[in-house]
Amino acid sequence: MDRRDSVSSIRVFSLNCWGVRYLSHHCAERYAMIADMLHREKHDVVLLQEVWSEKDYLFLKKKLANSHVHSHYFQSGVIGSGLAIFSKHRIQDTLLYRYSLNGYPYMVHHGDWFGGKAVGLAVLNVGTLTANVYLTHLHAEYSRERDVYLPHRVVQAWELQQFIRHTSAGADAVILGGDLNMHPQDLGNRLLKSYTGLRDAYAEADHFEGCEDGLTLILDNPFISKHVIAPFEKGIRIDYILFKGSCRADIRCASMYTTKGSVPGHPFPYSDHEALTAKLHLDSLAPSEACGDSRARSCECPQEEVAQLVDILTEARTEVKVGVHCARRMRETATRTGIMGLALLLLELAIAAVPWLAPGAQKTLPFPLTSFYLLAALCLAILLCTTLLYVFYTMELKSLQGTEDQMRLAVGGLQEKLRGFPVVERQESVGK
Amino acid sequence: MDRRDSVSSIRVFSLNCWGVRYLSHHCAERYAMIADMLHREKHDVVLLQEVWSEKDYLFLKKKLANSHVHSHYFQSGVIGSGLAIFSKHRIQDTLLYRYSLNGYPYMVHHGDWFGGKAVGLAVLNVGTLTANVYLTHLHAEYSRERDVYLPHRVVQAWELQQFIRHTSAGADAVILGGDLNMHPQDLGNRLLKSYTGLRDAYAEADHFEGCEDGLTLILDNPFISKHVIAPFEKGIRIDYILFKGSCRADIRCASMYTTKGSVPGHPFPYSDHEALTAKLHLDSLAPSEACGDSRARSCECPQEEVAQLVDILTEARTEVKVGVHCARRMRETATRTGIMGLALLLLELAIAAVPWLAPGAQKTLPFPLTSFYLLAALCLAILLCTTLLYVFYTMELKSLQGTEDQMRLAVGGLQEKLRGFPVVERQESVGK
Repeated sequence: MDRRDSVSSIRVFSLNCWGVRYLSHHCAERYAMIADMLHREKHDVVLLQEVWSEKDYLFLKKKLANSHVHSHYFQSGVIGSGLAIFSKHRIQDTLLYRYSLNGYPYMVHHGDWFGGKAVGLAVLNVGTLTANVYLTHLHAEYSRERDVYLPHRVVQAWELQQFIRHTSAGADAVILGGDLNMHPQDLGNRLLKSYTGLRDAYAEADHFEGCEDGLTLILDNPFISKHVIAPFEKGIRIDYILFKGSCRADIRCASMYTTKGSVPGHPFPYSDHEALTAKLHLDSLAPSEACGDSRARSCECPQEEVAQLVDILTEARTEVKVGVHCARRMRETATRTGIMGLALLLLELAIAAVPWLAPGAQKTLPFPLTSFYLLAALCLAILLCTTLLYVFYTMELKSLQGTEDQMRLAVGGLQEKLRGFPVVERQESVGK
Repeated sequence: MDRRDSVSSIRVFSLNCWGVRYLSHHCAERYAMIADMLHREKHDVVLLQEVWSEKDYLFLKKKLANSHVHSHYFQSGVIGSGLAIFSKHRIQDTLLYRYSLNGYPYMVHHGDWFGGKAVGLAVLNVGTLTANVYLTHLHAEYSRERDVYLPHRVVQAWELQQFIRHTSAGADAVILGGDLNMHPQDLGNRLLKSYTGLRDAYAEADHFEGCEDGLTLILDNPFISKHVIAPFEKGIRIDYILFKGSCRADIRCASMYTTKGSVPGHPFPYSDHEALTAKLHLDSLAPSEACGDSRARSCECPQEEVAQLVDILTEARTEVKVGVHCARRMRETATRTGIMGLALLLLELAIAAVPWLAPGAQKTLPFPLTSFYLLAALCLAILLCTTLLYVFYTMELKSLQGTEDQMRLAVGGLQEKLRGFPVVERQESVGK
């Protein structure tokens, strides 16, 4: 058998499993359904998100021991990253990159912070080719009109594209799957696709079958709260399979499928998200000299694409700057509240100390002891909380400013490229 | 002028600046000295660690505006990463990877946690070549005999080598500089060098001038506490410049220098660490077919090196397992203490409630109100602290377990390689 033939196509599956134990509906039953389907379908690569419990991962691992011998669970944060990969092909290496920003720990009801959102990389040997498979889940969007997490998601999209660009130079093919929590034309999505050159499997598939417009959160799914996607008529598309080749391999999407809410023969769907399956065709190319040339690697894009990228980056920088402004304001509020708590405490102590200091006065507290202790406890609680918040907002500010610095550096570099990169390097600063 | 000649050598400088404002001795004067020297010496690449204050970075940036037009400050954590790079060559791109573990926030006197230790990557255009320059600072070693931070440092070394391996495939040359806080033969150092193939500039330099044995923390330095390095006679070597080439460029270290404590004409040295300068020679190689071949890339090491790497990895895994054990024990202690705090609180409330529940009894507290409130506050404080600690230790545990998973995967892959990688992939699990 020609070895190359055996690896010319690769089937990639992606699903946000909605695996919050005791909270998600029919969690155990759905995992059993997912395991059966995966074992039957035998996709080459299975990318799962929101597998929050390691026990559920181990359950799937056991069930898929024959169909998918290689697997990895990405550990992160307090609960975990929720990311799991199952593969028919050998996983040669893995790497996890935790996003520097991921919501707020005190937004307990949203819970994203505790998940330790990240992007996982698994380097697969697909026959003679090396495929870098990325798996991620970005911060959820709880309100499209008042999306306080937008700067965080833009930073995540920025870090995701950076991570992919920097780690994929040695890969013959790049595949990214996951729940990006961004609509197709959202800023972070445009940033990701234009900077990395990743192509959308749904948009490029020769043949598509599934939900209209490739939607992945649909009204027909019984687990979906109607009000969440009501403004978008039929639903939204936030789960993706993206891919690109290299100078060593061509890649194209032959077909793509999504589930359509219900699963035949079962009372409910696999998850609140629809599952995606893409069949990608890989073709090895003969090694060319251009592959090894760093000049060729650094100037791949035509001018109009670079100009477009500069526009997107400028938009992203603005969004991050809004985030910097908000984080600074929040930190100031925390500081002011902390100072007020301290002042109140000192005032209380001063009032309490008066009878002891004033000669001849009665040596008793001028207010009930219960009020004294309750007020003191309140002040101390305020001081503690505001200190923790100050530390947290400082870290948030650093991450946002760091991203903005990197974006400015990138814009500078791209503008230099637009002007036509000079032979002798111009003596200009690109830093701030 | 032949362009290739102009970039055939590159001078790299690395220094841990000990820049803790108000705490480090003569901080401002030392930064002025450092700026003067850097401006005079005009190294191609300057890698600074412990530039904790952004103001000091901006001071250096202003002073070096003519000699080093390109620069970047890596933001991270609460205080910052302390990492700054100045370069004569264009910085094309940057990326920061925060280590998942970096000490404990309650070890305030050690302070490492607040620094947000990380590895920074700057992609430089050195003439026609692309150089990936890495800059890092690992967790300090406060006691060699009882090094509680060893598992954290091993995880950092693991993440450092992973990050370098995964991001350097597109680079023609790789340079790493910084304070690794590891002796030359320490586990993390061996892991880093064997896995990445990075070579030690001190060991490979054709010509060396400086402290005996290349030491970088020496007794002759007046800022060094004698008891810290007393067990090591003359001092220790924990700062490094490492490098490697690629199939597209050869690299060798022509000469290496270190400072020797005092600086001629100044009353004190630049820092408590010695500064390193390495002169590296870069030679472009003609692009070869092997460069673009993924098979060639994945099987570079001879068998004995792979075997040695398996041994080192096994040693590292053991160390990480010790860390897992300790983190689990600490989490259990936090849980037990939390439960005791809760039990005490409930007991107190029960005793206080007795007079109200028992018919006919006097409706007063059986103990003074002050004690009641103080004990309740203590219980609540215990509950809050142990909850925070539980969350922290859970995150620590996840990171350690995640690293151990990745190490096991790597050992599996290497052992497979040792047995001679089969043409048809064996149906064996490499995951856990």
